[in-house]
Amino acid sequence: MPELTVGRIVERIHPVDETFVQRARERTGQLVIPPRALGRLHGLAEQVCGIQQTLQPDIDRKSILVFAGDHGVVQEGVSAFPQVVSMEMIRCFLRGGAGINALGRLVKAAIKVVDMGLVSDLDPASLDGGENLIVNKIGPGTRNLAQGPAMSRQEAGASIAGGFRQAEAVIRQGANLLGTGDMGIGNTTPAAAVGAVLTGQGLDGMVGRGTGIDDQGLQKKKDAIARGLDLNRPDRGDGLDVLAKVGGFEIGGIAGCVLAGAVHRVPVVIDGFISTAGALIAASLCPLTAGFMFAGHCSEEPGHRTMLRSLGLEPILDLGMRLGEGTGGALAMTILDGAIRVFQEVMTFEQAGVSKGA
Amino acid sequence: MPELTVGRIVERIHPVDETFVQRARERTGQLVIPPRALGRLHGLAEQVCGIQQTLQPDIDRKSILVFAGDHGVVQEGVSAFPQVVSMEMIRCFLRGGAGINALGRLVKAAIKVVDMGLVSDLDPASLDGGENLIVNKIGPGTRNLAQGPAMSRQEAGASIAGGFRQAEAVIRQGANLLGTGDMGIGNTTPAAAVGAVLTGQGLDGMVGRGTGIDDQGLQKKKDAIARGLDLNRPDRGDGLDVLAKVGGFEIGGIAGCVLAGAVHRVPVVIDGFISTAGALIAASLCPLTAGFMFAGHCSEEPGHRTMLRSLGLEPILDLGMRLGEGTGGALAMTILDGAIRVFQEVMTFEQAGVSKGA
Repeated sequence: MPELTVGRIVERIHPVDETFVQRARERTGQLVIPPRALGRLHGLAEQVCGIQQTLQPDIDRKSILVFAGDHGVVQEGVSAFPQVVSMEMIRCFLRGGAGINALGRLVKAAIKVVDMGLVSDLDPASLDGGENLIVNKIGPGTRNLAQGPAMSRQEAGASIAGGFRQAEAVIRQGANLLGTGDMGIGNTTPAAAVGAVLTGQGLDGMVGRGTGIDDQGLQKKKDAIARGLDLNRPDRGDGLDVLAKVGGFEIGGIAGCVLAGAVHRVPVVIDGFISTAGALIAASLCPLTAGFMFAGHCSEEPGHRTMLRSLGLEPILDLGMRLGEGTGGALAMTILDGAIRVFQEVMTFEQAGVSKGA
Repeated sequence: MPELTVGRIVERIHPVDETFVQRARERTGQLVIPPRALGRLHGLAEQVCGIQQTLQPDIDRKSILVFAGDHGVVQEGVSAFPQVVSMEMIRCFLRGGAGINALGRLVKAAIKVVDMGLVSDLDPASLDGGENLIVNKIGPGTRNLAQGPAMSRQEAGASIAGGFRQAEAVIRQGANLLGTGDMGIGNTTPAAAVGAVLTGQGLDGMVGRGTGIDDQGLQKKKDAIARGLDLNRPDRGDGLDVLAKVGGFEIGGIAGCVLAGAVHRVPVVIDGFISTAGALIAASLCPLTAGFMFAGHCSEEPGHRTMLRSLGLEPILDLGMRLGEGTGGALAMTILDGAIRVFQEVMTFEQAGVSKGA
């Protein structure tokens, strides 16, 4: 089997099928609803039709992949929580006790956790719920991006290939809607760095408080990113370079997951700030991927809206959430479900015997 | 049995229980989530706790009441659809083929249609799905509000009492979450009139295109409302007078439904423009009712945001919807479900064995 490189993945991606989008719009126009009166629900359903190349869109087999990784940059005091929490939270996910589990159950999404690079080694065989843990570790946490590249270019490629493979596996098992999630103490720092490089937004508008750091912590975080960008000089025209210099293993995993959705024509619901950093990496490697994405929500992190705008995405929800884990994407899946139900289940004017307007 | 008057209803309403809101906030603070990191989901769940006076909130038995009525003001050419569509759409609701049915199935809400005053007479016994039609007709459509009062003060009281009784009936059958919906060709006209009176907003910022009238129709609609307000001089300090002069039978029914939620401590999810006009009437009769309301979404109708602000409500969704029927409220119930699941199902830091932050 040839090595799975980003180049080989990208050449398999084709655009969203506009013929099906158009045919879906025509069908929407026949529903017993005034023109486009359900607003964005129509466009969401039509985009799924274009992605899946069908007028019978189906998103009933949902799978959320939570990519986990640790970050050397926590040495700079950028997080309100100790690094061990990454691992502790993964154990909580596997036991079904976290926010993503509650919201995953709501939308009937399977939750898989992918260890892309935690410092701790978790053994699926010895853990409660370990059947939902996949170990695809690139390394025991990234290096400190404020002092040098977070990872090598080879590791960046491996993290994307790892995310791609794991997402491909769940697609092969039948998933027809993917969600991305993240866990990793400190990960709003690399996400903000990636966002700053790929959108051109200054750090004041991009860097936020993450899980809740104070003013002093926020300043440390901005300083660490500024030093990292200055030292590493990531090339904004080269997504793999950006990921390597200032990214994270889980961010690479998320980028790979998005690429897998695009290759296999499976819609991908992007969660918040970290997921969107991964989506930005994917789009920088292949702009066509943006057509396969749905922005689950707009996070409280200040740079998130800028990142979404740069991808041309309008968030579905805006509820002041900033948890990550995939929670905003999971909740937005309910809205996609609503959009698909309207598209599939509402009668036409003719079927309903309702008079048309002027 | 004494007559069911608005005064007798209102005296049974007590405030949301802030003790339970506070206790719920304390519980939220223990969940294995950074402080308030799921944003509005926390406040939504806590409000339900305050309404239901419990730390085990339950909104699993959902019921959406779609209040229907016709409007004499259609004579003024204010709608893009002929009046017969009100009745045709009700038949479609009963057959399960409309937007509200698709979204009601999504959230597992029972849909009941209440004929508060259609021009046509529908017979539940002879209709497909007629078991979900309740006839509580106040009259065969309102009179033309541009030429005089839409209804008498006595009819206004009867429409509120009717909505109250029907909502009370579904609560007695076990409903623990109510949604409001509407159907009635022309009903954005009285809703805008009610909104203008009760918020003080001028007509340019309040009157929109409803199901989709053109510029000329929009001007006719504004003119009709302006004439109606000038002629009828509704008293903004007297909700019953506003309803009688420029409202509608279904708007009164919605107001009654909100009052029933407040009396019986059942949360009420308000849908769009028409429902919010009903909610404004309810709040003008008893300001405490606002605490029992959730604003499902913000409609495309220009005055809706002003109306919500006047009630102190922040919409849950903002998806450019403008269908009515209860669709925005139904879809927002999925978000409330998510909020309740997080509140009930997420482990505490202690249960999860996760270290606390700084």
